[in-house]
Amino acid sequence: MDPLLLQVGVSEVASAVNFTWILVVSFLIFFMHAGFAMLEAGQVRSKNVANQLTKNLLTWSVGVMAFFLIGAGISSLVGGGGFAWTAGADPGSWASSWLYGAVFAMTAATIVSGAVAGRAKLRAYVTYTFLLAAIIYPVVTGITWSGAYFSQYLGTTFQDFAGGMIVHGMGGIAGLTAAYVLGPRIDRYNSDGSVNVIPGHSLTFAVLGTLILAFGWYGFNVGTAAIFTSGESGMLFNGAVLGRVALTTTLAMAMGAIGAGTVALAKTGKVDTLYVANGLLAGLVGITAIPNVASWWGAIVVGALAGAQLPIVFGFVEKTLKIDDVCAVFPVHGSAGVLGTLAYPFVAAGGFAGVNAVITQVAGVLVITVWTVITTGLVFGVLKALGQARVSETHEREGLDIAEHGVESYPEFSLGDDATMTDGG
Amino acid sequence: MDPLLLQVGVSEVASAVNFTWILVVSFLIFFMHAGFAMLEAGQVRSKNVANQLTKNLLTWSVGVMAFFLIGAGISSLVGGGGFAWTAGADPGSWASSWLYGAVFAMTAATIVSGAVAGRAKLRAYVTYTFLLAAIIYPVVTGITWSGAYFSQYLGTTFQDFAGGMIVHGMGGIAGLTAAYVLGPRIDRYNSDGSVNVIPGHSLTFAVLGTLILAFGWYGFNVGTAAIFTSGESGMLFNGAVLGRVALTTTLAMAMGAIGAGTVALAKTGKVDTLYVANGLLAGLVGITAIPNVASWWGAIVVGALAGAQLPIVFGFVEKTLKIDDVCAVFPVHGSAGVLGTLAYPFVAAGGFAGVNAVITQVAGVLVITVWTVITTGLVFGVLKALGQARVSETHEREGLDIAEHGVESYPEFSLGDDATMTDGG
Amino acid sequence: MDPLLLQVGVSEVASAVNFTWILVVSFLIFFMHAGFAMLEAGQVRSKNVANQLTKNLLTWSVGVMAFFLIGAGISSLVGGGGFAWTAGADPGSWASSWLYGAVFAMTAATIVSGAVAGRAKLRAYVTYTFLLAAIIYPVVTGITWSGAYFSQYLGTTFQDFAGGMIVHGMGGIAGLTAAYVLGPRIDRYNSDGSVNVIPGHSLTFAVLGTLILAFGWYGFNVGTAAIFTSGESGMLFNGAVLGRVALTTTLAMAMGAIGAGTVALAKTGKVDTLYVANGLLAGLVGITAIPNVASWWGAIVVGALAGAQLPIVFGFVEKTLKIDDVCAVFPVHGSAGVLGTLAYPFVAAGGFAGVNAVITQVAGVLVITVWTVITTGLVFGVLKALGQARVSETHEREGLDIAEHGVESYPEFSLGDDATMTDGG
Repeated sequence: MDPLLLQVGVSEVASAVNFTWILVVSFLIFFMHAGFAMLEAGQVRSKNVANQLTKNLLTWSVGVMAFFLIGAGISSLVGGGGFAWTAGADPGSWASSWLYGAVFAMTAATIVSGAVAGRAKLRAYVTYTFLLAAIIYPVVTGITWSGAYFSQYLGTTFQDFAGGMIVHGMGGIAGLTAAYVLGPRIDRYNSDGSVNVIPGHSLTFAVLGTLILAFGWYGFNVGTAAIFTSGESGMLFNGAVLGRVALTTTLAMAMGAIGAGTVALAKTGKVDTLYVANGLLAGLVGITAIPNVASWWGAIVVGALAGAQLPIVFGFVEKTLKIDDVCAVFPVHGSAGVLGTLAYPFVAAGGFAGVNAVITQVAGVLVITVWTVITTGLVFGVLKALGQARVSETHEREGLDIAEHGVESYPEFSLGDDATMTDGG
Repeated sequence: MDPLLLQVGVSEVASAVNFTWILVVSFLIFFMHAGFAMLEAGQVRSKNVANQLTKNLLTWSVGVMAFFLIGAGISSLVGGGGFAWTAGADPGSWASSWLYGAVFAMTAATIVSGAVAGRAKLRAYVTYTFLLAAIIYPVVTGITWSGAYFSQYLGTTFQDFAGGMIVHGMGGIAGLTAAYVLGPRIDRYNSDGSVNVIPGHSLTFAVLGTLILAFGWYGFNVGTAAIFTSGESGMLFNGAVLGRVALTTTLAMAMGAIGAGTVALAKTGKVDTLYVANGLLAGLVGITAIPNVASWWGAIVVGALAGAQLPIVFGFVEKTLKIDDVCAVFPVHGSAGVLGTLAYPFVAAGGFAGVNAVITQVAGVLVITVWTVITTGLVFGVLKALGQARVSETHEREGLDIAEHGVESYPEFSLGDDATMTDGG
Repeated sequence: MDPLLLQVGVSEVASAVNFTWILVVSFLIFFMHAGFAMLEAGQVRSKNVANQLTKNLLTWSVGVMAFFLIGAGISSLVGGGGFAWTAGADPGSWASSWLYGAVFAMTAATIVSGAVAGRAKLRAYVTYTFLLAAIIYPVVTGITWSGAYFSQYLGTTFQDFAGGMIVHGMGGIAGLTAAYVLGPRIDRYNSDGSVNVIPGHSLTFAVLGTLILAFGWYGFNVGTAAIFTSGESGMLFNGAVLGRVALTTTLAMAMGAIGAGTVALAKTGKVDTLYVANGLLAGLVGITAIPNVASWWGAIVVGALAGAQLPIVFGFVEKTLKIDDVCAVFPVHGSAGVLGTLAYPFVAAGGFAGVNAVITQVAGVLVITVWTVITTGLVFGVLKALGQARVSETHEREGLDIAEHGVESYPEFSLGDDATMTDGG
């Protein structure tokens, strides 16, 4: 027999393929930060671009340190495995477990920055990011992926494959909560309650960000499936799951864009570019909890609904709730994530998943929502009470780039006559 | 014997490595949509940017649905395998076969949007995209990759490894045809036949798109080679082919940029940035049919010629044919793809490939060209006859962003004095 | 026994996994060119954007040809293996050895373009790039990675895992040297020696470039570790090294951003966006020589120092040395690379690496520095003596886009009143 088999056997090679796959998809998911940065920068005014970019850079930098020093340990602690400090873990796990977890955690964190754009103080945002990465998000993964508490109490596992609720839903709900506590940008609403639209400064950057995110999302969803799974009698090739995730992710993405574009066309007679882009993302969010179990037609339905709800929910948040969710993070990540998570029992490839599955999904969504709203509200509420949540009105009107960062994002380009007229923030 | 071998043996692991590779390269090829979006957005006027971006988003979204529901089945039907509906296929194949095919199909589709920029109606473009993804492109793959009809009739296989003709040549020819039927943008040509140059709004986005495309192209070309091939006596590591494709792709890309830059320098005394960028892409297109069989010097020659022909063919299309191919998709994808495909017998690593190979390559190019011109001309001709092909003159002058999408891409930046003077479209 | 084992055995599959990994990370490292292009374009004035983009495109195109025809052979020649011409090598090695080496070489080359922005003649820059890829850089790898001369003379191997000194340090030092020889842009310094800040035209492109670079850097660092290493008794899974590299790269990146942002905040009271972005990159550069051997706390320390030194060294270069390093390539790549390389013995996971290691690291840094300064100074010195190094004052004031490339990067956007007032170059 080949003596090499003594060193690496077939199962070791299969494990290494899994490990390599995790590395590649972790890089892809990391790259989503470029997507978020561009998507959000494109959707804010030119006077707040540098602020948005800085927040994205610091979300990753501060968040990843918090998750290394504290967050990953909290997740295992809440999950029942004790506080497993990353620094003391097996070096191999630093990639396959820690980095892989960190890129998901930072996705949740960065979503919030889009909601609070244009008026949150940098220090307030960074404080929240630290707490999100250290505690708020790890508790969510602790009770779900790490702890599976719902299966203990309800008999069925909470189905959230890649974080449709745990990452995106949580981030979108946190963003909405933070935007509510902060209040809207100056001049976003008139005294009679009517709404002023404050368009972002660059659709090109916004769409670039969308496509970078979609690219990274293949890592996010397909990369959550292992190449080989460990069964009782050895390792099994996971091709059927990988193929299903690749298909359902693609179909839901496509239908999200079509759904949002169609609703926009029906409402306004025009195919709003930003709705199409954000609809594509909402379709992706919608399927993220269930890409491994959804039927192909279920992916189409969930994607279409996730896209179609976007213009409607955005209008509801803007006009009825009067919350200034600048980058539409709630309709894109929040409501779309909830929708897909709750849809699971009805669109499963194996047929209706049963009443217990419905209850488990609802329970999971409720618990994560309540935890996120309370903790996020508390953090921003305290910061607000301390006068540390928002920049001053002068700084908001001047733009956060000058006030917080001392830079202009586009020092050479002159602004149009009405560039400073639409809003004060 | 290790019981794990009963579960996954060496050949299963090798197959899984192939599968993983296909996943990764499919993601890379998908990311080319971000490249096309940026390349095209950068080459259109600021008033048409959102339109170009929306077309790219919808090319993927509508096209992928058409390819899922119809196109993939048509390809197998034309190829002689019957209409194999994707929804009923083995889930593993949804990644390794369907998604992998879809990302190539959507590349062909998105090329066309660059040619018809600035005046095609959104509904016309989307209609064509649907038909391209459902029928026009699948017929091309059906008679080549799926059916190998040329080898039946001519004895030699039509050599098009990764779609130099099947994807890029086809897309470039379709774009030229569509641009011809639509007619040029208003004010593109003066009444005396002289030409007005209408520069794109951002070279930075155009070059970003170029480099994203080049990145994805490694997936496109190298990813068309499997890691292991199945031989009669088992699976064989395909390193020699993978290495050759990686090298020839790199050399042709480099020489494309150098070739186009040199011709531009010779013609105008300056190294036009856009020619260098598009030349780099033309070099990639040129090698795409033959990266697995070309010699290293052949890659250099084909890349240099593909780059060098770009400024010349672009001038011919613009000044002699008077076709308004906005993003130069014909010289980049069309003529460069034809050039590389026809060059095969003369630059093959194994020496001259024989007269039959010359005939087969010519026949393949001709059949694909005729099919593409007829079907594309028909679709846009019918749309034109129905008055649905072009936006109104008012909308064209105003810009398609406002007219078709109700948005401004850069609402804050003021345009220069002559920003609205160069063209009406 | 499975007859397939006769074809591919476990060790062949393991080798193929290594090969596949090298392909993927080579693509990622190639993509860093898009990052450099955006980072540098964002940091130059709008009148020099096309020039910067063209330089990046030609760096890759010309450089890769030079490295194919000459450079790779020079590296093996200097390393003691004779001039191994790439064209004659085993095709498999064209990917696993040549392309993999080329993407590192081109990274070193492209760094220089950021230092000489806004006044170097295109032909001067291209000439230098050719020589760098053909000779200057290959000699550096020849005496280190290929030749291991330091271990012959000093007993310990020069520790530079992924090119912290060999690629980035060398590039940063070359850039500083070139910028010194060329002299500053017109109006960069007043006659009394005081400094005019010339801000780049787009922070958004600069931050996009930063995040693309960080994405590619995972390929750069983690991809330098093989999935399997060849031991005496067979192949061994390299998970512990892969995991350590992934962790230390991530931590150093994060701390680089935090370190630079903190120093900027302390110095100016504001968190300068560009310092945070460049700090993130400096943190990555800092760890690049040692990600496989640094302790987790060492990565934190090196990253923090690499970030913190950035604003300080940048000020020193600008105000004391009065060298116009436009894109801060010396503080980002040069001093940060030196710092990390020298830090190795003190932050190694296994404890202090010994005095010999200190001497070897210092010797390696010195030899590479001296070689780089002399050769770069010589090339640009000769070009300067021939009057070919810099564009004319008229062309510099007009902008290199018009003068060298005959294009405007943003023909539609009007420039602000003071857009042409800050500098002449």
